[in-house]
Amino acid sequence: MQLDSVFTALAHPARRAMLARLGRGEATVGELAEPLEMSLPAVTKHLKMLERAGLISRGKDAQWRPCKLETAPLEMAADWIENQRKIWEDRLDRLENYLHTLAEQEKKP
Amino acid sequence: MQLDSVFTALAHPARRAMLARLGRGEATVGELAEPLEMSLPAVTKHLKMLERAGLISRGKDAQWRPCKLETAPLEMAADWIENQRKIWEDRLDRLENYLHTLAEQEKKP
Repeated sequence: MQLDSVFTALAHPARRAMLARLGRGEATVGELAEPLEMSLPAVTKHLKMLERAGLISRGKDAQWRPCKLETAPLEMAADWIENQRKIWEDRLDRLENYLHTLAEQEKKP
Repeated sequence: MQLDSVFTALAHPARRAMLARLGRGEATVGELAEPLEMSLPAVTKHLKMLERAGLISRGKDAQWRPCKLETAPLEMAADWIENQRKIWEDRLDRLENYLHTLAEQEKKP
């Protein structure tokens, strides 16, 4: 299930920082590593998790292979949360309406 | 960082199913376990992860202790993705404007 790997990928601050950086444009592995104070192998490991989750793709230029953000899996994750929000907001609306009806009935003699 | 534990909690289908169920109203552990074809200890383990991430709270009634969805951490996760979306959409808008300007300049003699 892709949602599993997307949420797992989002569960680490370094990977979220990489995604945030790539949201501003393509970057090489070196550019992604620079602000992270992390070894290059550690960075590569995080990048592989992002790639497996479909959150980034790599360019084909053998030397640079710039990383690029793929937004579709993020949309999928946002949609899941958004669907839950609809369900709980509908429930709260119904509850509010019910309480309102009760209050109106109380007013009647 | 709470975002780490929230995204980790969301990365398993059973935990997402539990949250979806709780979005429709409070439920006991037994009610949550019923549709999951999972042992009660396994369900309890998932519930503990949800509780640690702040995604659910438990009632104080010693016997039933119904589980309740806490929406704030889900909002926090949605906000993170939403902020990223704003960044990449702004970038795409700027790129589109730039290409449009280029195309306009091409038209001029």
